Amino acid sequence: MAKLWGGRFEEGLDKKTEAFGASITFDQKMARQDLKGSLAHVTMLASTGILTAEEAEQIKAGIQKVEAKYEAGEIEFKIENEDIHMNMETYLHAEIGQVAGKLHTARSRNDQVATDMHLWMKDTLSETMDKLQNLREVIVTLASEHIETIMPGYTHLQHAQPISFGHHLMAYYSMLTRDFERFEFNMKHADISPLGAAALAGTTFPIDRKETAALMGFSDIYVNSMDAVSDRDFILEFLSNASILMMHLSRFCEELILWCSNEFQFVTLSDAFSTGSSIMPQKKNPDMAELIRGKSGRVYGNLFGLLTVMKSLPLAYNKDLQEDKEGMFDTADTILTSLDVMAGMLSTLSVNESIMAESTEKDFSNATELADYLAAKGLPFRQAHEIVGEMVLECTKAGYYLQDVPLTRYQEVSSLIDSDIYETLKSRTAVQRRNSYGGTGFEQVKMQIALAQDALKQKVDSEKE
Amino acid sequence: MAKLWGGRFEEGLDKKTEAFGASITFDQKMARQDLKGSLAHVTMLASTGILTAEEAEQIKAGIQKVEAKYEAGEIEFKIENEDIHMNMETYLHAEIGQVAGKLHTARSRNDQVATDMHLWMKDTLSETMDKLQNLREVIVTLASEHIETIMPGYTHLQHAQPISFGHHLMAYYSMLTRDFERFEFNMKHADISPLGAAALAGTTFPIDRKETAALMGFSDIYVNSMDAVSDRDFILEFLSNASILMMHLSRFCEELILWCSNEFQFVTLSDAFSTGSSIMPQKKNPDMAELIRGKSGRVYGNLFGLLTVMKSLPLAYNKDLQEDKEGMFDTADTILTSLDVMAGMLSTLSVNESIMAESTEKDFSNATELADYLAAKGLPFRQAHEIVGEMVLECTKAGYYLQDVPLTRYQEVSSLIDSDIYETLKSRTAVQRRNSYGGTGFEQVKMQIALAQDALKQKVDSEKE
Amino acid sequence: MAKLWGGRFEEGLDKKTEAFGASITFDQKMARQDLKGSLAHVTMLASTGILTAEEAEQIKAGIQKVEAKYEAGEIEFKIENEDIHMNMETYLHAEIGQVAGKLHTARSRNDQVATDMHLWMKDTLSETMDKLQNLREVIVTLASEHIETIMPGYTHLQHAQPISFGHHLMAYYSMLTRDFERFEFNMKHADISPLGAAALAGTTFPIDRKETAALMGFSDIYVNSMDAVSDRDFILEFLSNASILMMHLSRFCEELILWCSNEFQFVTLSDAFSTGSSIMPQKKNPDMAELIRGKSGRVYGNLFGLLTVMKSLPLAYNKDLQEDKEGMFDTADTILTSLDVMAGMLSTLSVNESIMAESTEKDFSNATELADYLAAKGLPFRQAHEIVGEMVLECTKAGYYLQDVPLTRYQEVSSLIDSDIYETLKSRTAVQRRNSYGGTGFEQVKMQIALAQDALKQKVDSEKE
Amino acid sequence: MAKLWGGRFEEGLDKKTEAFGASITFDQKMARQDLKGSLAHVTMLASTGILTAEEAEQIKAGIQKVEAKYEAGEIEFKIENEDIHMNMETYLHAEIGQVAGKLHTARSRNDQVATDMHLWMKDTLSETMDKLQNLREVIVTLASEHIETIMPGYTHLQHAQPISFGHHLMAYYSMLTRDFERFEFNMKHADISPLGAAALAGTTFPIDRKETAALMGFSDIYVNSMDAVSDRDFILEFLSNASILMMHLSRFCEELILWCSNEFQFVTLSDAFSTGSSIMPQKKNPDMAELIRGKSGRVYGNLFGLLTVMKSLPLAYNKDLQEDKEGMFDTADTILTSLDVMAGMLSTLSVNESIMAESTEKDFSNATELADYLAAKGLPFRQAHEIVGEMVLECTKAGYYLQDVPLTRYQEVSSLIDSDIYETLKSRTAVQRRNSYGGTGFEQVKMQIALAQDALKQKVDSEKE
Repeated sequence: MAKLWGGRFEEGLDKKTEAFGASITFDQKMARQDLKGSLAHVTMLASTGILTAEEAEQIKAGIQKVEAKYEAGEIEFKIENEDIHMNMETYLHAEIGQVAGKLHTARSRNDQVATDMHLWMKDTLSETMDKLQNLREVIVTLASEHIETIMPGYTHLQHAQPISFGHHLMAYYSMLTRDFERFEFNMKHADISPLGAAALAGTTFPIDRKETAALMGFSDIYVNSMDAVSDRDFILEFLSNASILMMHLSRFCEELILWCSNEFQFVTLSDAFSTGSSIMPQKKNPDMAELIRGKSGRVYGNLFGLLTVMKSLPLAYNKDLQEDKEGMFDTADTILTSLDVMAGMLSTLSVNESIMAESTEKDFSNATELADYLAAKGLPFRQAHEIVGEMVLECTKAGYYLQDVPLTRYQEVSSLIDSDIYETLKSRTAVQRRNSYGGTGFEQVKMQIALAQDALKQKVDSEKE
Repeated sequence: MAKLWGGRFEEGLDKKTEAFGASITFDQKMARQDLKGSLAHVTMLASTGILTAEEAEQIKAGIQKVEAKYEAGEIEFKIENEDIHMNMETYLHAEIGQVAGKLHTARSRNDQVATDMHLWMKDTLSETMDKLQNLREVIVTLASEHIETIMPGYTHLQHAQPISFGHHLMAYYSMLTRDFERFEFNMKHADISPLGAAALAGTTFPIDRKETAALMGFSDIYVNSMDAVSDRDFILEFLSNASILMMHLSRFCEELILWCSNEFQFVTLSDAFSTGSSIMPQKKNPDMAELIRGKSGRVYGNLFGLLTVMKSLPLAYNKDLQEDKEGMFDTADTILTSLDVMAGMLSTLSVNESIMAESTEKDFSNATELADYLAAKGLPFRQAHEIVGEMVLECTKAGYYLQDVPLTRYQEVSSLIDSDIYETLKSRTAVQRRNSYGGTGFEQVKMQIALAQDALKQKVDSEKE
Repeated sequence: MAKLWGGRFEEGLDKKTEAFGASITFDQKMARQDLKGSLAHVTMLASTGILTAEEAEQIKAGIQKVEAKYEAGEIEFKIENEDIHMNMETYLHAEIGQVAGKLHTARSRNDQVATDMHLWMKDTLSETMDKLQNLREVIVTLASEHIETIMPGYTHLQHAQPISFGHHLMAYYSMLTRDFERFEFNMKHADISPLGAAALAGTTFPIDRKETAALMGFSDIYVNSMDAVSDRDFILEFLSNASILMMHLSRFCEELILWCSNEFQFVTLSDAFSTGSSIMPQKKNPDMAELIRGKSGRVYGNLFGLLTVMKSLPLAYNKDLQEDKEGMFDTADTILTSLDVMAGMLSTLSVNESIMAESTEKDFSNATELADYLAAKGLPFRQAHEIVGEMVLECTKAGYYLQDVPLTRYQEVSSLIDSDIYETLKSRTAVQRRNSYGGTGFEQVKMQIALAQDALKQKVDSEKE
Repeated sequence: MAKLWGGRFEEGLDKKTEAFGASITFDQKMARQDLKGSLAHVTMLASTGILTAEEAEQIKAGIQKVEAKYEAGEIEFKIENEDIHMNMETYLHAEIGQVAGKLHTARSRNDQVATDMHLWMKDTLSETMDKLQNLREVIVTLASEHIETIMPGYTHLQHAQPISFGHHLMAYYSMLTRDFERFEFNMKHADISPLGAAALAGTTFPIDRKETAALMGFSDIYVNSMDAVSDRDFILEFLSNASILMMHLSRFCEELILWCSNEFQFVTLSDAFSTGSSIMPQKKNPDMAELIRGKSGRVYGNLFGLLTVMKSLPLAYNKDLQEDKEGMFDTADTILTSLDVMAGMLSTLSVNESIMAESTEKDFSNATELADYLAAKGLPFRQAHEIVGEMVLECTKAGYYLQDVPLTRYQEVSSLIDSDIYETLKSRTAVQRRNSYGGTGFEQVKMQIALAQDALKQKVDSEKE
């Protein structure tokens, strides 16, 4: 029957299915991890007597030569060698001949690929946490410069109450701190060695899994061999954590895009993080912010891709699992670069403080202040609210704001109102007085920043140790 | 222009938009949490002097009356009161009159709803962990009864190597242990009090957020008020953890469905967890396993739904956030029931041990054993492999298996082979000898079970304290 | 072993698994469709002689009685009767006794539920198309009132070129027209009768599937019985089409939210579609627009849920398929109400035309006009661009716009510039002159509206026939 | 502040953000489409007099030179030229100098990239439909060889009723036919020219959009310029259609994987579509089927990625839209190769007819036949069912099947049973007699195949015309 579909297909078939099944085009990203795992494995094979010391030395020397070639860019990966493991083995064979075959003793590609991925993930998580730490530092620095910068606080994208810009920024600091904690927890499930699980059931060879784990720097080893080769939880955690991170960044970018619109003009992006137009020199498109916002899509998609792959797969290894890698690599590239670009964008941002502040002077976001003022002077709250409602209505009709009402008029409305009301109605005063724990009052913002600086410093110190 | 769309729409409009905007049909699930939060709030308002002791007592008494009515099923929720907060406030008003209005001092629905959700999530996480603990116990008990039950180990759904059924089960124990750890970590981000963040910026009232947090049993409080009202990370973590859990259960259910097919017949489900047919009494549909497998879809969907809602939302509160609840409730219902049903299904399962074991006798999954046997007697591995390959081919042509080859024939092939080969080729022997750490060897499975029993016991002990 | 999990679980087990497996809580939405299908089936059973005329009459009369009770709200659905089919059959039995059992001849719940869903989907698609038609009419009417209303056209949320507000609105008309076409295509795959496929393989009874299809108003019948009971494509199409629709609405709502912010103030929503605040009477939260934007999440989630359910399900019916309904119902409710609310919101919108127009006078979005002016007078384009670039820079430094440059200065720069330049630089002129097919020029917008009015009228006419 | 993040970042910044913003690494896939669009555009610029004939000729000649270089593999794409448009323009400039700049008259990258994507999508849809047509032919051919091959029909993965293997295969034919129709409908929304929409608002140049559309082979043009540059519906339709297709293939692959397991052994995959093992020559892993099943994940992910990107984007062009391409390209690669591999796998499949058939002889899937037999002889259906129930129970206890019950025993049970019962109970008879329209009866399967052959032939004929 081959002829049926053969017309268009036949001669290309072997190449096509070979390419379809091969993973070397992407799993080459784990070349270093693959070599590291092999070194640990052969060292253990010698120390347990499974290989002779001499055999092990030959193999180690071979691996080091391959590694040197790889670092020198002299390794060419080939589709016909299917994956990173076989490509590397082929090179090893070319270096040291037959004895190369002994490296695969008591090991299977199933536990080998799992090992490579755990090693790769550990590296990636470390790098992610470094970049998150950096971005948090950038935010804290920016916030510390804008503790007393007043801007409108929004709910429903409507002016609600005036706030400190530093306070607004520190909300993102809090989000990113949780992101950091999530990646830190993620490490716990990445930092487990699957090596020695073999195909799925362990091996009859007297291997020492603790030794290989220690050599590769793992803190723990899988206690069930079938779980070891089929577990992809640590990748799902990574994709999920990355999705939440990108969600946070998409919110921040949305705000940056709003803030640099003609209508807001709260901030100006540096040229390095925006694109201009030759004919409209005033135009600065916030391309980088838009891209980061948009890239939430691919990361969400990668998460859902792998959740779909894993759904209802029977144990233990299935070829479907090969689909775990591309989304993982793409997600890592995306978040690492997004964190860098975000830090750069914020570090070089100009804040138009006066426009921000003025924006809080042309609204009724100080209405609550008037009510509180009356209540503080003893007027029942409900009655205070009523008075404010009437005054706002009166102002709206007249086309001015609460701060523009003459004192004589205020005193007609309530004898409790005195000339200090004008100080109370100022946005700055309103912000300053919201001094409940975690509120936007300047003292509270300073407290948040101090806590953050401490936390960031401790992190750096603990890394130095 | 109203007439244009009014023809079909007009009179129903108010009702429709009211219902569209209302959340009471679902947020009533948080009634107890709402009352708990109000009690803590009013207690603090008194202790800080914001309300008088007398006012606070009146309000407390009122809340307790509403609570009693709620528990007695006498509360009727109304769409026109929009959400759980306003419904409760309306009842409170009916009980105690005007003073009810003072409860809302220094509080906004923005921090109130966030508080309710954190409280609800803490309850749900505890319940989830209890049920996970229970399911892990069920699995360990079942595994402990099947340490020496032999079955085929699969890769690519092909027989690969014989394994212990207990070992197979313990792979799921490992997965569920990670699930447990994830929900435990989730608690960290749920166990933070947002109360006192007010609308978004904190309040000018001298509230004590630590007091309310302590009264409600929170371990921590949000340090940034804008983050407090707009953070939904703890829900996203829950949905993500639930998705991974359902993925694990979908894998287990897929296997149960396979195992009780006519072709496998490895297990028989109890009548309570399958449905029959009046005309085909032998037919037992694994409905519950299929449903759990299928319900992975809705949980994945709920996760993706909320990730979409949150994408690029500017700070702080937006009405979009109301969409955070239904998926959260539905996910909780789904996983809690799935865990129960799973535990019930496994507890009542019959294992057809002889069919499982026989299934490992009609394949070549012992080919590796022959190779290892020769290698152990000194034959170079590569040569050993070649001999095995030839023997398997010979068997396939002749229509029998390695264990059926007469000793005379074996000795023609290699003088290293002796009569002890038949013991080596037995599935049971093969399983027993895979004794590397975490492997399927009986000693290893016992070790895993002992570790698991310890871990589960510690958990129970720590809860007792 | 039952005791192990029984402590918390046992007595509730039967109820719990019963409720877990039951679908009556949601599939009761298809009550009318179920009765309609049964009526058609029994009519055919008589006309083919499978039942006697007398039996069929008894059954028909019984169905009609049940239907009357249902419409009168006298049917109470019970969990123990599991689904809509068994609930209805139980009522039928109560009406007419034993003969009720004959209704199920040559029918299975597998084809029955598929039939109900196809009927339900056809009704829902019709209703969706009606509401889409209505919303398109609302948009065309609004656009026709704003052909010459000038506003900034945005790219990257930056002012790019001035446009007609009517033109902007008509972009949404185009999107919704494609939505309409997608639901129309969806009907093709919904409008196929599965009845008669029985459990999966057809039946030995001499049924007439064409007759039942005709009686129920189906245009086509499934040609493969296994496909008939396991096909859920028509639901996936619906969820996908609904997702694209909600994406469009989320874009529109995002713009409405921007437009009614303090910073834009382009439009004012009517009170019926926004919520106020007792203390801030000027505050109007665009709640409905936010909700619709947020509800894109649940619809996306429902799509992903069903795609997950269907992934790698073997043929034919599996219990997993029961998970197809809730997301479908929820999606229908969501889009139908969103379309209504959207139409209401747009019909009652106030457009602040002068603010919109003025916004185009305080930017350099007319820079292209100056370049075109010079090019039209013969200056090479590149040189024209250079001049414009210099002028914009000069203006920016001086703090005014191109329309504010005195003629003397223009003439220093280029003798080609004359006093007619000021007309050219006006936003209105710029819009008017973009008269390429489909452009924002007034004539083009009128053309679009005329085409749309024709298309909408044709649709109405074709329905009348 | 630059120093803060600069330590790790600064020098690499420009390169990093440049690479982050660039699309040339992936949009080079549209090189041919970009050149085609440019040729059409310049032709129109001449015919409308916007450019002189001479200028146009120069540009055309230049484009053709660039095209020749591209086809010869002599074009090197550069990150610093950002995207396919600028890369091509740079080459054009190198060929013909300054006049190259005129090509961009009355065109923007916004409508240019939209044009490229529409052209690319049309090509991809045609190729997809060709491969779908091919796969449908393969299935029909295979089905036509197995009309009378008997196998178990499954519900809940339990044997339900015996069916024809050809019938089972034709269920997939039906699914793929709907897939074909969806891609065909998709073409309608891809086959619309956006060229001439310019940046977003059209142009003041007297362009002829109908001419360029005709030159590029488009059937229609966008009627609204803002919609033209921001519409991505045709890509979402493609991703959605691809997701449903991959869902169908994942179901088929799941069945193939089951069927070639040791437990089923219904089919044997050819060596070209499975992977072996040197030591276990009998082992054939269904790698290709597993991969296709797994690749449903990435396609679902791509769909959700783009839905997320588009959610709540304001009009018109935003940089986020650049994220529309990689998922689209990846999806096309995935489905095109999957369709090829699927066709190859089915064309070379061996069907183990006797194992399939025997499998229907060791179950009670003929129980319905006995009931029908009794009912046909006049026994009331309910009573018939009861008798069958008892017989099945009796058989189960005794360990044999309905066909093994001696006639004497049958006649004790009911005098209506005669020796022809044994013919009735045969699976083959059961299949043959399910002759309702679309059922599994041989005549019905033949009918389906004949209809399919007609439909496929008409398609080929219509293409020839």
